Amino acid sequence: MSSFDDTPAHDMRGDALLPSGFADLLPGEAEAEARGIACVMEAFSRHGYQRVRPPMLEFENALLNGAGSALQNQTFRLMDPNSHRMMALRPDMTTQIARIAQIRLQDAPRPLRLSYSGSCIVVGTPGRETDRQVSQAGIELIGPDSAIADAEVVALGAQALDELGIEDVSFDLSMPALALGIIDKAIPAKDRAALLHALDRKDAGAVAELGGSIADVLLTLLRAAGPADRALEILRGLDLSDAVRPHFERLVEAISALRARRPGIRLTVDPVEFRGWQYHTGLCVTVFAAGSREELGRGGRYLAGKEPACGLTLRPQALLRAAPLPPSRPRCYVPLDISAEALSGLHSQGFATVSALTQDASVAEEAQHLSCTHFWRDGATHAL
Amino acid sequence: MSSFDDTPAHDMRGDALLPSGFADLLPGEAEAEARGIACVMEAFSRHGYQRVRPPMLEFENALLNGAGSALQNQTFRLMDPNSHRMMALRPDMTTQIARIAQIRLQDAPRPLRLSYSGSCIVVGTPGRETDRQVSQAGIELIGPDSAIADAEVVALGAQALDELGIEDVSFDLSMPALALGIIDKAIPAKDRAALLHALDRKDAGAVAELGGSIADVLLTLLRAAGPADRALEILRGLDLSDAVRPHFERLVEAISALRARRPGIRLTVDPVEFRGWQYHTGLCVTVFAAGSREELGRGGRYLAGKEPACGLTLRPQALLRAAPLPPSRPRCYVPLDISAEALSGLHSQGFATVSALTQDASVAEEAQHLSCTHFWRDGATHAL
Repeated sequence: MSSFDDTPAHDMRGDALLPSGFADLLPGEAEAEARGIACVMEAFSRHGYQRVRPPMLEFENALLNGAGSALQNQTFRLMDPNSHRMMALRPDMTTQIARIAQIRLQDAPRPLRLSYSGSCIVVGTPGRETDRQVSQAGIELIGPDSAIADAEVVALGAQALDELGIEDVSFDLSMPALALGIIDKAIPAKDRAALLHALDRKDAGAVAELGGSIADVLLTLLRAAGPADRALEILRGLDLSDAVRPHFERLVEAISALRARRPGIRLTVDPVEFRGWQYHTGLCVTVFAAGSREELGRGGRYLAGKEPACGLTLRPQALLRAAPLPPSRPRCYVPLDISAEALSGLHSQGFATVSALTQDASVAEEAQHLSCTHFWRDGATHAL
Repeated sequence: MSSFDDTPAHDMRGDALLPSGFADLLPGEAEAEARGIACVMEAFSRHGYQRVRPPMLEFENALLNGAGSALQNQTFRLMDPNSHRMMALRPDMTTQIARIAQIRLQDAPRPLRLSYSGSCIVVGTPGRETDRQVSQAGIELIGPDSAIADAEVVALGAQALDELGIEDVSFDLSMPALALGIIDKAIPAKDRAALLHALDRKDAGAVAELGGSIADVLLTLLRAAGPADRALEILRGLDLSDAVRPHFERLVEAISALRARRPGIRLTVDPVEFRGWQYHTGLCVTVFAAGSREELGRGGRYLAGKEPACGLTLRPQALLRAAPLPPSRPRCYVPLDISAEALSGLHSQGFATVSALTQDASVAEEAQHLSCTHFWRDGATHAL
């Protein structure tokens, strides 16, 4: 949805142009988005995740606390004229769900399963045309710290995407603590940033140069990125210290638990993926549709206050681009004097009805004019 | 939902308190709100209203244009660092829908039927504890200017409330142009504000004093407020000028069209109701649940640019307080190794399933701990 290139000049045109990154969804698109979110939230609800709905904005210090601090630069602030305190529009909902779990629901039994959907607003990067109003629909599993919990969250994401009809989804797993543990032990703090940057860029030459005594290990990690079985095979060949071996074992365990729940799931592993996982403490996952490299969602393990938690956030805007459009409802044009019974009969057959607004409307013509698929005459539907 | 009086002191407590007028919806409440909005939007869709979804914020001059200017003082502004222009959080969605109809959908056939739902943010009044994040779900019928169009919008609102299970709903109709037309002709401009204020307060003494030559007519209008039939009877007795008589006739016609569509509808008429109808040009309606005097919604006729339009906005937060809580889904605790078939069987019976996260979980105890209604053992559900 770009600007209004396809509409003629109009005296409101300049005023009506939206800020970049904000868009109108028109009929069809808006319905598809709403149905997509409803489908995902229904999958979450069926698996015992209970919906919460935090507000669009909070006091700045609450919203950008802890895990939220990573999003400081992406957050719009505004002054509350009532309390004279700074508020912030949420750039993400995970921090809010963690707050609800820690405070409002601190006495609710664990494991606590919560779901949510809503819009977030991010500042964006000038000159980069990306969405600045971002829909989210997600789950958080709070309390347990286990591979089975990790697997439940990822498997439920896969289930939801399946129900949306998105095919060939791929889940890219990473375990940032594994590579970071190796690096922290061997590389002086002052040299780490350059090395991490090289790993981020998958720049083998720079990694060889900056990797010192662990260059070979890191190059092996780089080479391991790819399909899960091959990656685990390569990682298994490494001589890991007792400090980092548990991260590898947890990864193996999570993959095995995930396969037990969803035998066909397509998994890749990237052992040197750190970007965007600032507050994560365990398994991380990025979801892709095989056709595009657009992220459909992401999630991972973190601490909600002091509690272990694991979550996954899907991005309905990306889902909308990846999912087949749901069939639109057939539309039947009906005369003004149609009986209530006939009307509700049409509704229960799945029709949307579009009513005449005058007694003497020419039914077939008006039906055509209004892009209806059917019209009602003499007690029956007629297809156009 | 007040503050956290029922939770013990906590080191995040001060930070986590939300700004007044903003609230978390917890499990149960959030689900009920989402289901209520879905139910209302489904009723709108079945009657041919197509969903659009404008963004949460726009450039200030677009959002506060025309009809939106009435909401200037209720609007939060924020600077867009990318375009260096002021943006505003929407305090209402009607202006946005009118913009979409005028520009994005200017070539779509009329009558154009649009629906929408989303959150709006208002500044509020310091010291007054009202919602500042306001959910809206509404419809706009754009193009026709007729009593039948007025009636369709109100009748569909009644239908949606019916499907939500809200009983004893009352629709309070007004036609501001009727009384304003009488006043404008007889009262000098400088004296009108005081008179309108007296009418607003329903202060018969002040109206008698300030009403000059039309004091009797205005007192009759005041007295007419009440059930629709009685009100029309009283209004019919007035000697209305040719300039204002059409407003009365339109009111009569709209009521009759509305009764034809929904025979049992409960209607009242208030001929001296002007408040909150700054940009309305015809029939206006306020929706109340008989039990409380809380507004469930409001709407009316206005101009979307130069096009006649008529809309109705329901307030899901008020609906939630008026509607019976939907029955919550039964929850069945299931062992980790339950088969995919058994799981989907439970889902198609309407159960939410809550999975064990360890192999050896004590099923009945855990089910109880997690507030489940059932657990699964030996291939069958057992009620708790």
